[in-house]
Amino acid sequence: MRVLTGIQPSGDLHIGNYFGSIKQMVDAQESSQTFAFIANYHAMTSGGKDLARLTMQCATDFLALGIDPKKSIFWVQSDVKEVLELYWILSSFTPMGLLERAHSYKDKTAKGIGANHSLFSYPVLMAADILIFGSEVVPVGKDQIQHVEIARDIAIRFNNQYGDILTIPEFRVQEEVQTVLGTDGQKMSKSYGNIINIFGEEKAQLKTIKKIVTENVAVEEPKEFESCNVYNMAKLFLEGDNLIALQDRYKKGGEGHGHFKMYLAEVIWEYFKDFRQKREYFEAHQDEVRGILKVGADKAREIALPTIEKIRSATGISY
Amino acid sequence: MRVLTGIQPSGDLHIGNYFGSIKQMVDAQESSQTFAFIANYHAMTSGGKDLARLTMQCATDFLALGIDPKKSIFWVQSDVKEVLELYWILSSFTPMGLLERAHSYKDKTAKGIGANHSLFSYPVLMAADILIFGSEVVPVGKDQIQHVEIARDIAIRFNNQYGDILTIPEFRVQEEVQTVLGTDGQKMSKSYGNIINIFGEEKAQLKTIKKIVTENVAVEEPKEFESCNVYNMAKLFLEGDNLIALQDRYKKGGEGHGHFKMYLAEVIWEYFKDFRQKREYFEAHQDEVRGILKVGADKAREIALPTIEKIRSATGISY
Repeated sequence: MRVLTGIQPSGDLHIGNYFGSIKQMVDAQESSQTFAFIANYHAMTSGGKDLARLTMQCATDFLALGIDPKKSIFWVQSDVKEVLELYWILSSFTPMGLLERAHSYKDKTAKGIGANHSLFSYPVLMAADILIFGSEVVPVGKDQIQHVEIARDIAIRFNNQYGDILTIPEFRVQEEVQTVLGTDGQKMSKSYGNIINIFGEEKAQLKTIKKIVTENVAVEEPKEFESCNVYNMAKLFLEGDNLIALQDRYKKGGEGHGHFKMYLAEVIWEYFKDFRQKREYFEAHQDEVRGILKVGADKAREIALPTIEKIRSATGISY
Repeated sequence: MRVLTGIQPSGDLHIGNYFGSIKQMVDAQESSQTFAFIANYHAMTSGGKDLARLTMQCATDFLALGIDPKKSIFWVQSDVKEVLELYWILSSFTPMGLLERAHSYKDKTAKGIGANHSLFSYPVLMAADILIFGSEVVPVGKDQIQHVEIARDIAIRFNNQYGDILTIPEFRVQEEVQTVLGTDGQKMSKSYGNIINIFGEEKAQLKTIKKIVTENVAVEEPKEFESCNVYNMAKLFLEGDNLIALQDRYKKGGEGHGHFKMYLAEVIWEYFKDFRQKREYFEAHQDEVRGILKVGADKAREIALPTIEKIRSATGISY
């Protein structure tokens, strides 16, 4: 099963990203053929500031968190330029209405993001990303279902004219296994300013964790754990006895939320220790990271080439 | 002076194409650096049927008619794929309104051509074509002025963000030196069905020429030449004494329009004789044509590469 994921190079990763999607992607490497690319062309649709640095940061972070180039194909979108040729070709099979009805474009422009052509045509590039690798399954959040439907629509139109060249992809809605709440109890999201970074500095981490909103109860009294933001975050990292031990501390009283926050900070710090070490390694070996990405791009291109050759020949671009 | 021209691979060329634009292009090779490409990606916007054959026919015809690969850079658009990367990059600098206001898109969709995305975004690809080669002058018909203005607009926006990387192009309106009228006296155009092909079969040519609409005057009487479609066509091919001799035959009477048509057929056949021989040569040596196009693409890419490298680096696509 060939599974494709595009990763936006959007800066510091937080634990909501990790438990919401990255962990599943890493785990999925065991059972499916994972294709994961850093979507730097897509990132340009919304400004694309600081793109080179964010691309390298994204690669470094994902390698540290467990993307394994031995198991997965991991590359930067712009290193398989054939995708842009397919993007252009598919444009002739994309009725304008299909793009005009795309929610994501309507939402973004409604939020005041400048209506430029790349934002509008982004679903066609996404279709090319999906179709060029013959992806069978595209795991998506609910907001991205329509984009896979657009890709299916375009592929069907293309195949109607030129024969069964493109694989029609299926989407798989990725249920968030755990909804991760932020420091204020809302869903963790950069835009809410309630995140805890994965790779922050220890002091900064502690400072953020101390800001977690908790109820006001005297130290000596027993405390609710089910509704506590600190406990709910800790739950992501603890299992079995360790989790029960924490519950007991809440029930017993005698400790304030400050103590639980200190404990949470330790637990998080410990949880990401190996990842942090791997990250430090890759941080110090950026050329190795670049090398991994190049190898990934070569593998991805090898898979894309027979498809794009067939397409060039069918459409008469090869002469 | 670097002058860029895109050529649509649209099938059989007629004498309106030749005197309306091809001849000027061939002549211009003496005084400017001519960049001429066969716009096969663009041809896809309106269906792109039979593209490979039309691409080769276009290359063969233009080489026969005088595009000289020693003087000009002559290639097929899709062989310099970097243009698609610039197309994507420029899309982020293209406000939707700019494309929505494009006459050519509005005209084509008004004529019932399916409103697909490639037709809509065509001016952005055209901008990339122009800008990637640092073109200083783009000779255009009046209907294409707006497209060069769009390219200027996009280039200025890009340079505002990233510095003076792109050359801002100028358009030069190509006055049709001679408006060529068709067999019915209207402007010669494939869509009017009034054309005379350059490289038709001799018999078919004669048959077409015999259909030229003329006034009904008895053989023995003198005839008007200024208003005669046969004369006006012959005028394109004749100069000096030969032209005066033809005028005299009109004035003298004693000959019917059929005679003038026979003469016109001979004159046209003779005029394109050397071109036809060159065409037969290239027709029999299609691999040589492909070789010429590849060499042209290499030269074009050599010129495009420093620009695209600068752009990749400025935008952070290089990481």
